[in-house]
Amino acid sequence: MAKKNPPLRIIPLGGLDGIGKNMTAIECGPDMVLIDAGLMFPDDSQPGIDLVLPDYTYVLENEDKLRGIVVTHGHEDHTGALPYLLQDLNNKVPIFSSKLTLGFIEGKLAEFRIKTPKFREVHDGSHVNLGNISIDFFSMTHSIPGALGVYIKSPQGTVMHTGDFKLDQTPIDGVTPNYAAITKFAKQGIDLLMSDSTNANRPGFTPSEAAVGPTLNEVIKNAKGRVFVASFSSHIHRLQQICDAAKKCGRKIVVTGRSMLTNTRVARELGYLNIDEKDILDAYELNGIPDDQIVVMCTGSQGEPLSALSRMANGEHKTLSIHSGDTVIISATPVPGNEKAVQQVINSLAKLGCTVVDKSTRLVHVSGHGSQEELKLMLAMAKPSYFMPVHGEAVHLRAHANLARQMGMRDDHIFVVDNGDTLEMRGGEVKIGPQVESGIVYVDGLRIGDTDPIVLRDRQKLANDGMVTVVAIVSMKRKRIDAIEFSSRGVSFTIDDEFSSDASASIMKAIDKGSFDYTSNGTGALRKAVRDSLSNFIWNRTRTRPMIIPVVMEV
Amino acid sequence: MAKKNPPLRIIPLGGLDGIGKNMTAIECGPDMVLIDAGLMFPDDSQPGIDLVLPDYTYVLENEDKLRGIVVTHGHEDHTGALPYLLQDLNNKVPIFSSKLTLGFIEGKLAEFRIKTPKFREVHDGSHVNLGNISIDFFSMTHSIPGALGVYIKSPQGTVMHTGDFKLDQTPIDGVTPNYAAITKFAKQGIDLLMSDSTNANRPGFTPSEAAVGPTLNEVIKNAKGRVFVASFSSHIHRLQQICDAAKKCGRKIVVTGRSMLTNTRVARELGYLNIDEKDILDAYELNGIPDDQIVVMCTGSQGEPLSALSRMANGEHKTLSIHSGDTVIISATPVPGNEKAVQQVINSLAKLGCTVVDKSTRLVHVSGHGSQEELKLMLAMAKPSYFMPVHGEAVHLRAHANLARQMGMRDDHIFVVDNGDTLEMRGGEVKIGPQVESGIVYVDGLRIGDTDPIVLRDRQKLANDGMVTVVAIVSMKRKRIDAIEFSSRGVSFTIDDEFSSDASASIMKAIDKGSFDYTSNGTGALRKAVRDSLSNFIWNRTRTRPMIIPVVMEV
Repeated sequence: MAKKNPPLRIIPLGGLDGIGKNMTAIECGPDMVLIDAGLMFPDDSQPGIDLVLPDYTYVLENEDKLRGIVVTHGHEDHTGALPYLLQDLNNKVPIFSSKLTLGFIEGKLAEFRIKTPKFREVHDGSHVNLGNISIDFFSMTHSIPGALGVYIKSPQGTVMHTGDFKLDQTPIDGVTPNYAAITKFAKQGIDLLMSDSTNANRPGFTPSEAAVGPTLNEVIKNAKGRVFVASFSSHIHRLQQICDAAKKCGRKIVVTGRSMLTNTRVARELGYLNIDEKDILDAYELNGIPDDQIVVMCTGSQGEPLSALSRMANGEHKTLSIHSGDTVIISATPVPGNEKAVQQVINSLAKLGCTVVDKSTRLVHVSGHGSQEELKLMLAMAKPSYFMPVHGEAVHLRAHANLARQMGMRDDHIFVVDNGDTLEMRGGEVKIGPQVESGIVYVDGLRIGDTDPIVLRDRQKLANDGMVTVVAIVSMKRKRIDAIEFSSRGVSFTIDDEFSSDASASIMKAIDKGSFDYTSNGTGALRKAVRDSLSNFIWNRTRTRPMIIPVVMEV
Repeated sequence: MAKKNPPLRIIPLGGLDGIGKNMTAIECGPDMVLIDAGLMFPDDSQPGIDLVLPDYTYVLENEDKLRGIVVTHGHEDHTGALPYLLQDLNNKVPIFSSKLTLGFIEGKLAEFRIKTPKFREVHDGSHVNLGNISIDFFSMTHSIPGALGVYIKSPQGTVMHTGDFKLDQTPIDGVTPNYAAITKFAKQGIDLLMSDSTNANRPGFTPSEAAVGPTLNEVIKNAKGRVFVASFSSHIHRLQQICDAAKKCGRKIVVTGRSMLTNTRVARELGYLNIDEKDILDAYELNGIPDDQIVVMCTGSQGEPLSALSRMANGEHKTLSIHSGDTVIISATPVPGNEKAVQQVINSLAKLGCTVVDKSTRLVHVSGHGSQEELKLMLAMAKPSYFMPVHGEAVHLRAHANLARQMGMRDDHIFVVDNGDTLEMRGGEVKIGPQVESGIVYVDGLRIGDTDPIVLRDRQKLANDGMVTVVAIVSMKRKRIDAIEFSSRGVSFTIDDEFSSDASASIMKAIDKGSFDYTSNGTGALRKAVRDSLSNFIWNRTRTRPMIIPVVMEV
């Protein structure tokens, strides 16, 4: 019986423990669809990690069911795990998304030498059948064009997933959210709504992207020298507004920064970004063009040390430099954790004597995520029976749940869950199901997945306290240490002859006291004794506790 | 001639390269006074560093001139270098400050076992002669009581130093800025004004500290369970308002967190904080007291992992715990760099099911530093001939200079300088003088000052990439490597037998090719060859570049 009527399972594999690495599997019996496959950037507690991915073991183990991957929009927290996932899958799975999203994904896959992926372009109004799951796509507004929401139908009920969104009535490309589609699906019945929680703590309504244009225009118009605008390179609407303002002010546009060059090229080729060829200059062609006829559109809005803006601020860019009298607009907000890096760049720019304009003083940035009134409006339009806030940290998911409660939704119809928890829908009714394997996976060099928490702990210890290697050459026969040598990195004391001989003496003394049974113990006990005695010696002398790496070798 | 009429020298040793470690020497011929002796907390680029101090070599080298240390208020960025400086000075130098500031300093010095410092309590209206320099003190408002500004007279002219300030017309203790004193000194003539730049980028007027009280009161009144309020432990006015609100709402106060316990004790003893003994409970006495009759005042507003709030949020506090239904007020703002740590605590609290109130949603915090209108008002009242913005990052100092320009001050009368630059005043005229030794000094364990930049670079490399130790035992006589052993920490690959034997083979091969002159070269070239070949081997196999620590030992 259960086999005949399997539930619709909603399986969040990422996106519920922070903003990033979004991934949700939707499964009904023999068929499964994946919504998004994103990455997350590591934070300070993950030193040396390149990227963080959701653990998608469940997808791999059920590959035979996987009918397609749906990508709601082209941001890396929704697309960035694709190159890894596609390499790990045995078969080619079709990827459904908008033209621009597929354009961005194509570029990324090419970097990984993943060829001829199965792209299936969809748009507002597209309907796709994937086994017993069907998907309707509808337009949404976000800080990137081509954002789509999805309405999922299955034999057991329906799910609406908003993707990332704000409700922008005056979007730059004219593509408003498809309210008619949302209310039509609501009429058909939405059993479960999954909705973006990023700004669930912000009261009010997020200003339209169009609100930024006039400010950009005014700042550029009043600038005496060159104007540099740093922004997210995927924020094509923002880039369009920067280019429009430049043109209005009689300035040519220079694009710099690798991802800015790539994304503007792709967006122009696909018709998402309109700039006249004659209005764009190469950074090499600027000789003789007056400063007040130039706008430089660059990467580096997050203070990334190797980005175009940081290089220019520090005089290390190969073609462009920023001078006193220039204006720099930071048309972005620091992603949490990047505040200090951004402030450092701003200070470098201030020292150069240029004017820095950012969102703290002028409206040069608005969020791409809906605030409380938009989130409530979405709930009001969708009228779901059940609600699952997604895309957010713990505090955002709970704030979003509170909004639903304020609107009269029953507590037991709201599911604030963790990655790996599942929901099961039967006949439109939703209950918590069994957990699946989930977690995070680190990308560190070539290796994916096997970065142990101990490795990260060791790295932090090494960073905080440095390390001392002690090599002891032991004669097992003569039961004694023949030689000891030290080597250190990242410690604030110097290992000179005096330190060396005192430390050696201290180790010898400890070993003597230990009276080791050299023959039977092997070197394990010796290593421990060497490490402990050296650690004590260093603590007593310096009040520091570097990591001690003992190597005991027998001769 | 020059000897007979030495200039007044203004020597900033800290506070001009960021917010923190404030220290300025004021010197006139044979006499010198130090204004503030603060510390700074390290950031991510300084792993493992405990504290950052200004390099005060200049003070030590001119100790014979030092007549006194003036401390404008009791925050650590103005007092924290004192324990180190006092230990480095040969003689006891008198410290001039307000009662509360001296009370806080006394506690800190006691931790360092510095006994019987020469404290000289001063207050609004105090006048002190220190050689040919005289100092008048006047009240200022800031986020700590007992804040003082100073007016310095010398044979060569006068200087006003505001200390940290806001212009609060309704301060909690009733002690407003002494506008009469400021305008009186202005009438006598202020040749140079040194003024706090922290909020020079914020338009408007910073709200009064009194604005926070009603919100605290309302949130506490409406809370169902316990209320936890995290704040800066030195912010006595805030603590007073928390206690007043608690009392008004019929709740008892529990204090937890080491510095919160210390500072409330000192402030109560000195009469700066008024709480009835009967309104305070020990954390051990809470049994049987209803949740809605308790306010817990705690440390941890910066997300510090070992603070009371973090411990309570993670269920690791020894006496107190936070539950669903409780309310947590974060009555503070994250110091730049702490945003992510604070957000982590907020997420932990959200998961517990409690309500978190912070300044993003309610007015539960205001700044202690004046905004643009206050800074301009100060310039307007002081009417200085010359101006030197202090206390800020590059961007703040320049914004403050811009305000002075807007008010009509001539560009060549505004000095935006770096630590170690000096100003010289002769007959009220100010010019740039010669530089003095300056910089930053790290406190790392017992060691002060000798943390090399290389050490910090090594620590960051270790944190990002981990390390591999390779020990090679070399027979110089037989010209060969007898044994190789590896040990690693913080790398994402495992050194197993296969790795070990492949890596050894690769090293041996490289050495063979090198055909070393074992006898004459010593082990230097060998160490380099071992390191390089292992580094290449690891890169080829893992695409990572851990730090390689080669140890070559001869037998």
